Order: sequence, then structure tokens, then C-alpha cells
Amino acid sequence: MIRQRGISMYLEKITSPADIKGYGAAERKALAEEMRDALLKRASIHGGHFGPDFGIVEAIIALHTVFDSPTDKIVYDVSHQSYPHKMLTGRVEAYINEAEYDEVSGYTNPEESPHDFFNVGHTSTSISLASGLAKARDLAGRRENIIALIGDGSMSGGEALEGLNVVGEMDTNFIIVFNDNDQSIAENHGGMYRAFKELRETNGTAENNLFRAMGLDYRYVADGNDCEALIAAFSAVKDSQKPVVIHIHTQKGKGYKFAEEDRETWHYRMPFDIETGALKHPYTDPFQVASVDFIKAEAKENPNFVFLAAGTMGGIGLSPADRAELGSQYVDVGIAEEHAVAMASGLARGGARPIFGTYSTFFQRVYDQMAQDVAVNNNAAVFLSVGASLYYMNDVTHLGFFDIPLFANIPNLVFLAPASLDEYAAMLRWSVEQTKHPVMIRMPVMGYEESPYPVRTDYSNLNKYQVVTEGAEVALIGAGNFAQLASAAAAELEKEGVKATVINPIFLSGLDTVLLDSLKEKHRLVLTLEDGILEGGFGQKIAAYYGMDANIRVRCYGLSKEFHDRYDAAELAREYHLTAEQIAADTIFALKG
Amino acid sequence: MIRQRGISMYLEKITSPADIKGYGAAERKALAEEMRDALLKRASIHGGHFGPDFGIVEAIIALHTVFDSPTDKIVYDVSHQSYPHKMLTGRVEAYINEAEYDEVSGYTNPEESPHDFFNVGHTSTSISLASGLAKARDLAGRRENIIALIGDGSMSGGEALEGLNVVGEMDTNFIIVFNDNDQSIAENHGGMYRAFKELRETNGTAENNLFRAMGLDYRYVADGNDCEALIAAFSAVKDSQKPVVIHIHTQKGKGYKFAEEDRETWHYRMPFDIETGALKHPYTDPFQVASVDFIKAEAKENPNFVFLAAGTMGGIGLSPADRAELGSQYVDVGIAEEHAVAMASGLARGGARPIFGTYSTFFQRVYDQMAQDVAVNNNAAVFLSVGASLYYMNDVTHLGFFDIPLFANIPNLVFLAPASLDEYAAMLRWSVEQTKHPVMIRMPVMGYEESPYPVRTDYSNLNKYQVVTEGAEVALIGAGNFAQLASAAAAELEKEGVKATVINPIFLSGLDTVLLDSLKEKHRLVLTLEDGILEGGFGQKIAAYYGMDANIRVRCYGLSKEFHDRYDAAELAREYHLTAEQIAADTIFALKG
Repeated sequence: MIRQRGISMYLEKITSPADIKGYGAAERKALAEEMRDALLKRASIHGGHFGPDFGIVEAIIALHTVFDSPTDKIVYDVSHQSYPHKMLTGRVEAYINEAEYDEVSGYTNPEESPHDFFNVGHTSTSISLASGLAKARDLAGRRENIIALIGDGSMSGGEALEGLNVVGEMDTNFIIVFNDNDQSIAENHGGMYRAFKELRETNGTAENNLFRAMGLDYRYVADGNDCEALIAAFSAVKDSQKPVVIHIHTQKGKGYKFAEEDRETWHYRMPFDIETGALKHPYTDPFQVASVDFIKAEAKENPNFVFLAAGTMGGIGLSPADRAELGSQYVDVGIAEEHAVAMASGLARGGARPIFGTYSTFFQRVYDQMAQDVAVNNNAAVFLSVGASLYYMNDVTHLGFFDIPLFANIPNLVFLAPASLDEYAAMLRWSVEQTKHPVMIRMPVMGYEESPYPVRTDYSNLNKYQVVTEGAEVALIGAGNFAQLASAAAAELEKEGVKATVINPIFLSGLDTVLLDSLKEKHRLVLTLEDGILEGGFGQKIAAYYGMDANIRVRCYGLSKEFHDRYDAAELAREYHLTAEQIAADTIFALKG
Repeated sequence: MIRQRGISMYLEKITSPADIKGYGAAERKALAEEMRDALLKRASIHGGHFGPDFGIVEAIIALHTVFDSPTDKIVYDVSHQSYPHKMLTGRVEAYINEAEYDEVSGYTNPEESPHDFFNVGHTSTSISLASGLAKARDLAGRRENIIALIGDGSMSGGEALEGLNVVGEMDTNFIIVFNDNDQSIAENHGGMYRAFKELRETNGTAENNLFRAMGLDYRYVADGNDCEALIAAFSAVKDSQKPVVIHIHTQKGKGYKFAEEDRETWHYRMPFDIETGALKHPYTDPFQVASVDFIKAEAKENPNFVFLAAGTMGGIGLSPADRAELGSQYVDVGIAEEHAVAMASGLARGGARPIFGTYSTFFQRVYDQMAQDVAVNNNAAVFLSVGASLYYMNDVTHLGFFDIPLFANIPNLVFLAPASLDEYAAMLRWSVEQTKHPVMIRMPVMGYEESPYPVRTDYSNLNKYQVVTEGAEVALIGAGNFAQLASAAAAELEKEGVKATVINPIFLSGLDTVLLDSLKEKHRLVLTLEDGILEGGFGQKIAAYYGMDANIRVRCYGLSKEFHDRYDAAELAREYHLTAEQIAADTIFALKG
């Protein structure tokens, strides 16, 4: 079939899955090509998830050919592979019309379409969520099909495995499409992946079968990019009254050679040049560089140092070459954050010095492990939290600014917020050298370019804040990413004749009561600034501490407890008065009041 | 062997595992009987976990015969089955000498003995914790054995399954003893248990094998209460350089007929009469009764109502007969809290009305599921949290009072704290009838015996507090379990001539700013009382709200962010001034100041 790139015969006419039900094999093949062309162009301009979508095109065409969405309900795990689904369910303009690229989110979204059932962005949830739809259907006496589509990378997550076990006992219609492209975000890790490999090598007949061991029926499709084979397999299980897994073997990034060859890099990609694959706006994060440098140096110095990852390296930045260099001092447990935290506790207990690093939004998955496995035992593991800021990922499913209420309120856990590159490096070093406290560090998203004070090397004097600038009347306590904002607001105030005290608290997990008491002498207004929600956070502790002091007023700056989706960070900051000018203006007004 | 009950030939002489290494089979058998006698007597007087310990006696004797603890390291999952281990590792007096019964905790405890490695009480963590010990050993170049002992009930938990997968890839010594007594706390649920049954029925040869599917070697011991067979199996894998599972089939509660016959009741038992098995101090919790009555009534009224449990019914109190009556409207997912929460979200999305209930301490395991699977999607599932109080479980691993910072700070989630039996029942009804909000309810541990105000039937006017008593000067805002304490403190104040306002906030998740503003008129001191830690909690929100008001002072009553173990609740309450008399005295003093 000869077709001019960019001219769509089928795609642009599709307004619902009904439009493709009459297609023959050749039309489906042409449609798949058109979809990939559109995906490639959009990704090159807009950025987004790449490999997961390129690999799943045929499966999604097949699903919408066989099943009747939205009566039949498809739940996408993580849902970063849902772009082809959106193209076929009334949202094609957002993939072919550059002006409308921003009209859809990067994940399934019930607000966009009745074909989407959940707003999902964390892994390993599809089976459990879909099991609820299946049970609700059974209670109501309906008969539609419930389908969970989950990738092999997500299968190592505890929630998915719990789901498999529960579903294995449900004597009802439940279809799991297991998309095996032999890759997580990074390479896969864990014993189950050996068994999946055996299944691929034996056309699904190998004895070791996780799904059968969990009580589910099982079918294998060797070429998961063969739409006709997929249609046959899905048709065979449609309306089945037993839970069943369809294991499909697909090619991640299929159809674009750079993505096929380097599946990790092309899992997600910022805008790039189609011909070369090169990023249009390459960027190096100095905090990532500092992290990688530290980890590699520490590993060389201390044979008992080990870095733990959980399936994603994006936020830390250890390249495949870095990981190879680390050798046995690098452990990727796959997507299994709970395991990683408990393993870190065990490592510390056994005399090793572990750091487990992941995104702030994924640390949400391990409160109990942090509290029970680590903090109750007071094991000195180190946790590196990436992207805990309103200035980081802005999808509602990936917000990183809910962490202070979670982790600053666990006894024994020392929660540090560095305010500059140097302070960050010093904290990393201290945290792995000491063996008395579990420590969590918020990797800075921004900070002082040059520290305005000599950086400490020792943080064992817990909850000792740092006075950055001495002043009077007003004290600004700016934590971590917002330390610099506190200094900037003080500079604004100085223009108005107010010489404020600026403090970097360093510790999010406790109060420097000596310093707070001493402030009472010369100050009557204390401002707290934190890069996170206020409810349950740092500033409210300060406010409560001064609760009985009639002479000290406290105002807390931060976000309110709300979900925001694809927001403009600068706008959000202004909405919450998180600019130096607004803080100064508020303060001048308050001093007059 | 004829032996007089209560006279110990072996047990009382054991000071360390070395003492049993020279034993022959007959001596081990006699020792096991002595251990069961001691366990039975202690449990009848002191209470504690029962079934898990009675079933594992021989396995623990065999472990300490074959391995060299503490060089070889045994990690106990949940560790409620560690009593026999404690008896053999220098702590026998706490099991045979009534005066010393309280000298040990109910869980492994590194502060008690070098043979204990972690303080553990939540399930499904042993494999992950032990994997850290194994990796630390490998980094340090040591060669000891690492053993994780885990029950079948714990195997359905996500953290355990994540651990299996990771360990399945570790090319090193790692021994998992899988204690299969075919029972969780309640009966087991999930597809894996069918496969375990097949394994038991085929002497370990059935094809569907979860452990092999995760990459581990596997051996089966048909009689897990046969010490000699266990010794042979453990000896065969000692020093193995590959991860291996020893699947042992034991009898939960072995040796005491009531426990063998009713394994759920005898999982944990308060003091009882040995001859009859009857509780010495039977107690009926009115809040449990109200819960059970509500659930059964609601299930009859609404075919789409469903109650979800996660392996434990203790806190809610649905008996096996109640569950049978509920039929398909009752789902026990086994120990799989993450799945339960996500499934509840799916159920609500699919039009059903689910309640998932478990202990507050176990809700800690599902912050991310509550935030992402439920709250981001705003699905109106209902969550019933049991034992969120300092007056409930007092083991450091089972504390229920950390929940307010966790769940009051998730957007969209309505967190309710009822203050009386009637209010609790009204909230249950409202929460399952409305479909706009996800709701968490703290099942009361205490409350007004009779509500001092007409109880609302509708809570959809969010964050609308209830004025209980109107007064002036001082306002006491007492939440949930502490509403009554607020009224009692007000009564004390009245004796001193201060007629305080008393408020029940009802909502932990938001502020009634209209009411708070109105308080400014006639009040200058606001007291908050919450049954939980203060950091990140309810009172700090109130303090921050009044932060800029120089005329209102705020004092927050509650616990501080600390772990407490086996504390005396009344003493702890006094330490934090959580009595009516102390609050009144503090207040009189503050008003003078």
C-alpha cells in the first residue's frame, strides 16, 4: 500500500469505535500506519509517552473491533498507552491537529470521554480497578465485558499482583490483556520475567505460568502487533464467564527505529527531530548531575553503599552506563516501591548504606513501609525524593507536592529540604555516612545558586535551623525550594524599609524551638514558605507552635489541598501569592494592619 | 512419654538455641509439648496470638536446630508466630513465669534479643526485609543464611509478592519457609490458594506453582508439624546459593482442640478458660454491633451495596454467619488492602455502593490508592477505619493514631469523626446513600452515650461544624472520640465560672470558616482536641487559620509525633493533658496569663 506520509484516509474520519468495526484486515493495517504517523508527528512537536503507544496500536484497534466500548469497559494500566484508544474514541483531532494537541491529557480521563473510566497515572492499578467494575456489573445483573490492559513492567507492582490473586477467584467475566514488550521503563527485573521469557519462547506452553498459578485461564498471542491474530484471540474470550489472561507479545516503540533500538530513552520523549531522534531542547538538571556524581563516588569509596531503583531512573538520571559501572551496588527492583523501601530497611539493618530514589509522587505508595519497615525500626536507610515541587510534573496523577504531610509526620524519620546544590551534596554525604536516623531528602527543583551561608557538613544536630539573614519585625522561614523565594521576598521588603530575618529550616520534620522562641524578642510576624500543600504541612506546625503567643502572628504560604491538572506553574504560584512581590506586598499590608 | 502437665524437663533450661542442638527426636517432641503447654497457660491468662504459634512450634525448633541464629538470620512475617522463637532465644521466663509475662512484646523485637532483626506487626514484609539482609551480606562478603518465615495468609499481600519476584532474580542464598496452614486470620481468598491446595494434594508436584513462576526453587514438606521431616528439609537447603521456598503444611492451633476446630476465633484470643475455651471477660463493642446491624440492613435494602474486607474481620465484627447471610454482597479479598481500596473505587464507578473496612493501622498501607485510585477520580466509595485512637491497640506496630495527617489532607476525601453511636449510624447511612464524595469514617472508640444535639441525617453540607454548647471566652473543638472530653472539660471549667463554647467539628477534612470567624466575637482562646498526633493534624489547621488574628489564641491537644509501645493509655493521656481536669486547669491558667 502506497500512501503519502501525512495524508490520512481513515484516521481523521473516525469519531467512535463503531467507525472501524466494518474494516477489513488491509484497512486496519492502513489505519495502524496512519495512527503511528500521527503519533510520531505529535510526539516530535508536543512530547509525551512514545514506546508504550507505538507498541499497542494494533491491540487497541483489535480491542475496539471486538468489544463494544463503552458498554464493554477497557481499563488501561498507567494509561500512558491510551493515545491510540483516544484516537479511536472521538478525540482524533487532538492527535492530528496541532492546534488541538493540548486538548487531551496524557492519560485516560473520564472528563474527556465516556470511553475512559478512570484518571490513572500510577502503575499496577488496572486489575484492581477493573475488578470493581466487574463486581458492580455482577451485583447489578449486567453482562458486559470488563477488560484490563496491563504492561509487563506494571505486573511486578504489588497492587497488580494482589489483583491477579483476587480476580483468580472471581467466577465471572474478566479479561486481562497482558502486553509483554519485555521492558519496564528501564529493563525488567525479577524472577517473573524469566518465566515470561520462557512463555514467549514456548509459544505460551511453558510450565511456569504466573497467571495459571493465580487461578486464571491463559492464552498466548505470539505476535501482538498482528491485528488479525489479536482479533481472533479477543473474539475467543469475549463473553467468557471465567477470568482469563491474553498474553500478547508486542514490540515497544514499533515503527520508529530509534524507539525500537533504545526502548528506555523512548519510553517518554520531549519534542525531538524526527530524522535524527535528537531532542529539540536538550536540558541538563544540575541536581541530577550532582546526584549521579555523588552516587558513583560513594559507591567507589564504600563497598557497602548501594543504590536502589524501582523501575524508573528518570528523576535521578543514572544512565545504563552509570548502572553498569555501579555493578552489584545498583539494584533495580522493578516497579515495586514497597519492596524497595523494606529492602532498604533490611540493607541498613544488615550494615549496608542504601539510598532508594524515586519520584515524590511514587513515594506516596510507601507510607506504611516508611513508617513500619523503616521508622519503627529506626533503620538508617536514605530516601531520595525527586520532583517534590509545584514546578515539576503537572499532571493530576503525578503531582509531587503532597509529601510533607506524609513524611514529615512519621516519628524518627529525618526529612531534609536542601536549599542549594552544595547543601544538597552535603546532605547526601551526611545521610549515608551516619547510621542513626532514617533520612528522606527532597532533591531540590530550584535553590540558591550560591549558598548564602557556609554549608554544614553535619546534620546530626536535628531540627537546628539556619539563619540566613538577621533582621527584625518580620521573619521569613523558607524551606527547600522556597528558601530562595524567602530571600527574594526579603529583598523586596528591604526596598520598603523592612529588614526581615530570613531562615532556612533545613528540617521539615521538626521545629527549632530555641530559634522560634528567640524570634519573639524582635519579631511580630512570621511567614512560612513551603513548596507543597499547607494542610498538614510545615507552616501549620509553626503556626501551632506560636498559637498561644498573642504577640506573634503567623502566615503560611504554600498550596491548598487541591488536585490540579496540567496547570501553568507560574499562574498557580501567583494564585497562591508565591512570588516575592506578592509576599512583600501582603507583608507591608499586614504590618500596617 | 509420660509427663506431668506443667512440669518442664527441657524448656525452662533453654537459654539459647545452642541448648537444643544436641537433642534427639524424642527430646524435640517432648520440648514441643512443653512449649505448647506453656503457650496454652500463658494465653489463657495473658491473651495474645494463639493459632499461629501453636502451628509453628516444630518448625521453629527445626530452624534453631539446623541454623545458627543469630549469625544465620530468621525474619518472621507479621511475627505474631514468634513466641516459640522467643522461648528458644533466651526469653523463656516470659512464657513460663507468670510474673514475667509482660516482659516481652507480642512481636519480634531487636531491643529484646540479638536473635530478632525487626520490630514487625504488619503483614507481608518478611521477604523484602530479609532480602535487604541478604544483599547487605553479599556486599560485605559474608556467607550466613538468610531465612524468611511467612504464612500463607500473608502471601496475598502486594509487598510479599513484590518481594518474591525480586528475590526470584537474586542469585544468592535466600530461604523462604512458607508456612501453609490454609488460613489467613479469616479463611483464605484468592486464586493462589487453589494452587496451594493442589500442591498440598499432590505432595508439591502440581504444575501451577507460584514460587517457580517467580523464579524460585521449591520443596514441599507434607507434615509441617513433623520436626524430623522439617530438619531434613532445612538441612538440604542450608547454605544453598539459590533462592528456594520450603513449603510446609502445618495445622493452625495444633494441640488445642478448640483452636484446631475454629481457627479464625483462635487466631488471637483474650484470656480464656482452658477447659471450655470461653473468654474470661467477654465484651461487646456497641460500635461493632452498630456496624454489623447497619451492614446487614443496608445489604437487604440495596442489592448494589457490598462490604469489602481484607483478611481480617476483628475490628468490624461480621461473624461467619453474618458473612454467609451477606452472600455475594460480602467480598473478602484476603490480605490485600491496596487491591481492596482500588476495587472499592471501581465498584463506586460501576454504580455499586461499597464500604471497605479495616483497622486504622492497616489503612496506612493505602495512602496512594486512596489518593489516586479513589480521590483523584472522586469515586464515592466508603472507608471504615477501626481503632483510630490512643485507647485501642497499643503495640508500636499497631498504633491507630497516625491517620489524620494521612487522610485529612487528601483532596476530595471527606473524613468524618462521629461523636456518638447515633451519629455514627447516621454517617454510615448518609455515606452509602450519597454518590458525590469518597468518605472515610472513623469508627468511634468512645463517644457521647446520648448525643447532646439532634443528629443530622445529611452531611452533604461539607465542613459544617456542630455547636454543642454556646458559651464565651473559651471554645473547645473536640473531634470524634474526644467530643465527649471537650464537653467534660467544659463542665470542669463551668465549676470555675467559665461557660465555654463546645463544638463538634464532625469533619476532620476541612474548616468551618464561617463558624471559626464568628467565634472571634466572643472568644479569645480556642482549644482543639483530637485523638491522634498533633503534627499534620486537625488542630494545627485551626491554629494556622487563626495565625494572623492577634486576639485569638489556640492550644492544640493531642499526642505528639512519637512511637509508643505497650503503653498504659490512661498514663499516656495524662502525659499529654488529655483529661478534663488538666484541660480545665491549663485553661484557667491561660486565661489568667
